[in-house]
Amino acid sequence: MNSLITERRLERIDPFADNYASGARAMVASEIRTLFEVAARPEVISLAGGMPCVSALPLDVVGDMAGQLIGERGSAALQYGTAQGDPGLREMICEVMKLEGISAHPDDVVITVGSQQALDLIARILIDPGDAVLAEGPSYVGALGVFAACQADVIHVPMDDDGLIPEALEQAMRGLAAAGRRAKFLYTVPNFHNPAGVTLSPPRRGRILDICASAGLPVIEDNPYGLLGFSGNPMRALRADHPDGVVYLGTFSKTFAPGVRVGWAVAPPAVRDKLVLAAESAVLCHSSFAQLLVREYLRHQPWLEQIKIFRGCYRQRRNAMLNALDAVMPGGCRWTTPGGGFYVWLGLPDGLDSRAMLPRAVSAHVAYVPGTGFYANGSGKNYIRLSYCFPSPDRICEGVQRLAHVLEAEIERHGARQLLPS
Amino acid sequence: MNSLITERRLERIDPFADNYASGARAMVASEIRTLFEVAARPEVISLAGGMPCVSALPLDVVGDMAGQLIGERGSAALQYGTAQGDPGLREMICEVMKLEGISAHPDDVVITVGSQQALDLIARILIDPGDAVLAEGPSYVGALGVFAACQADVIHVPMDDDGLIPEALEQAMRGLAAAGRRAKFLYTVPNFHNPAGVTLSPPRRGRILDICASAGLPVIEDNPYGLLGFSGNPMRALRADHPDGVVYLGTFSKTFAPGVRVGWAVAPPAVRDKLVLAAESAVLCHSSFAQLLVREYLRHQPWLEQIKIFRGCYRQRRNAMLNALDAVMPGGCRWTTPGGGFYVWLGLPDGLDSRAMLPRAVSAHVAYVPGTGFYANGSGKNYIRLSYCFPSPDRICEGVQRLAHVLEAEIERHGARQLLPS
Repeated sequence: MNSLITERRLERIDPFADNYASGARAMVASEIRTLFEVAARPEVISLAGGMPCVSALPLDVVGDMAGQLIGERGSAALQYGTAQGDPGLREMICEVMKLEGISAHPDDVVITVGSQQALDLIARILIDPGDAVLAEGPSYVGALGVFAACQADVIHVPMDDDGLIPEALEQAMRGLAAAGRRAKFLYTVPNFHNPAGVTLSPPRRGRILDICASAGLPVIEDNPYGLLGFSGNPMRALRADHPDGVVYLGTFSKTFAPGVRVGWAVAPPAVRDKLVLAAESAVLCHSSFAQLLVREYLRHQPWLEQIKIFRGCYRQRRNAMLNALDAVMPGGCRWTTPGGGFYVWLGLPDGLDSRAMLPRAVSAHVAYVPGTGFYANGSGKNYIRLSYCFPSPDRICEGVQRLAHVLEAEIERHGARQLLPS
Repeated sequence: MNSLITERRLERIDPFADNYASGARAMVASEIRTLFEVAARPEVISLAGGMPCVSALPLDVVGDMAGQLIGERGSAALQYGTAQGDPGLREMICEVMKLEGISAHPDDVVITVGSQQALDLIARILIDPGDAVLAEGPSYVGALGVFAACQADVIHVPMDDDGLIPEALEQAMRGLAAAGRRAKFLYTVPNFHNPAGVTLSPPRRGRILDICASAGLPVIEDNPYGLLGFSGNPMRALRADHPDGVVYLGTFSKTFAPGVRVGWAVAPPAVRDKLVLAAESAVLCHSSFAQLLVREYLRHQPWLEQIKIFRGCYRQRRNAMLNALDAVMPGGCRWTTPGGGFYVWLGLPDGLDSRAMLPRAVSAHVAYVPGTGFYANGSGKNYIRLSYCFPSPDRICEGVQRLAHVLEAEIERHGARQLLPS
């Protein structure tokens, strides 16, 4: 009787309650989302978000370009485009990818709404419910969301300071094979990993490619941060050495601006064809205006110099964060030293729970993302992702200090709890 | 042996051949797509595409707005936004919808990448493979693509000059019930239907809503053309009279410009929540810049006056097409008389096949979309969708004349074939 009443009440609240697809019934906003709304208040220092420093762009120059583009070529820039995307922009993307050793033809490229859409389309093309997918542990939260929406079974493969561990990958593949299964693909962020902050070493790149090639395991190489290294040249992309087996995802969100939502995928022709069809079904086509704006920016502005400016900005902020962590973090904490990108992965003393701690951190006016968000299986509760991309160095220092105080209180509370009789 | 060789060859051509999801294996580009590439040549008059007349916009004014937006507020306009979309734009959207009798709160609105993305997200939330969906016959080709991607079973419901026929809807629902099934929703384009060019009459609106409400059948009301009527006030939206049971989809592609890809969905709160989560998984967020551009355009420009300009432009082109059809179409053809929107639905004499005829039409330098594209079940081969939205009135006349010649030759060929001994 009671459950019938509950069901009826649910129906009244949600008139569509009986009509959802099986994968959509479980879609509910997390409690963390609500907390982040609080964390958006100005008194809270957020080390949570991954917002690039777009104010470092020459906004007046970009504004003039945008104005001219519409004023002079608006009947093309404001019109529908093709599902694959503007050919001129795809040409420029091939130039950009040359920096990472990739030799691609503009025909191989599909423009997407940020690389998030590329991920979504790839997953829709390759994943049936219950399929296994290999991904680093921890892994990008947006990818995990896509895989969950496709009802994939994510198998995490451990990393160390040199990135994904080849032996662990082999072990995971053997584990699947022993159960009569195989993974649909390996999803990897080889450079300046989000959230782990580590980079796959050059010797391991060859090793990982060999393992995947000999098993016929496709690789999805997600590379938003590859050009944002703080020293040396960009790393050679996995795609550069195995174009048939690697789908490469790129984006201008970090090297230009996320607000235009221009990303791309480079894929073998048959996969590319399916991506174009899937993109057409999902959004018809990308914004012509956004694509032409990025194309003209790449053609006529010193975009590589601008990337150097971004790098300098993030290097300074990374240094501020690492210095602050060195200075104030309590014993038992350890963290990665990113050579580029946006993130530090902070391990907490045993027994602490970063998710349970978050409300207390937000009360102390500092926010972060709990490690559990980066695992599909509930792991990661004594890890934290800290991002240094957006706040000023001073705010980063202050934020890390506040976090240290929260952790000290947490350690004390935890120690006291351990003394209690169970 | 042969099939093994074929499989191996296939594998070499497509290294991912073994890895596709079940729904993606069948994804292949249609032969019509190739033909449309030919049809894009300037010597071909295309009555195929649905491109709005964006050159009627004050491009210099819009350009100035875009430039200022980036120059003065670029650090917000070029940054990430939220998955639900800009609150200010959602407020303005509620103002726009008031014209159709809809009373909605900005919280009810989700911004999407054109209304195509809204369709895609709705389908992903509601459709499991094999689920039945009701839609007009013919129906919007982009919706059919989305439903096919979700492996839905589309049941077409006939229309007449007053739009969807209520008795036919009841009959389709009874047919499903008799087979122990029910539809997940009714998908409908009530105003200036694409491709049929007809509009659901006011008495039928109440009738359709009653049928759906009493069966608990959700309605997806797709309304891209509602403000583009050639006479009188906008029709009252279905959503206006049944907000709990109707998800309404709108877009600025036809009332402003498709190149910004700004559409929206208005849904009951529980569905809205799932749409936001699905949008976040699909693209993280919509372009902040595109959203702010549309918001500022609505706030500061005479957008209703601009819609009147668009209406005048399309009315003139519609008249040109109807006059040309009256003047030159061979006997046995009949067509709809759209009161707004972009399309005329042309029925051919019995026995003609508009798909088979298309290459000959393109050779005669005129293009259209064959009727089969607007049915999920192979129907529609003796229909054609003609669009008058983009070519000038002179080109429309010339295009219809070319089409008439092609049809005459086709009728002659068909008659001759019928005389042949079988």
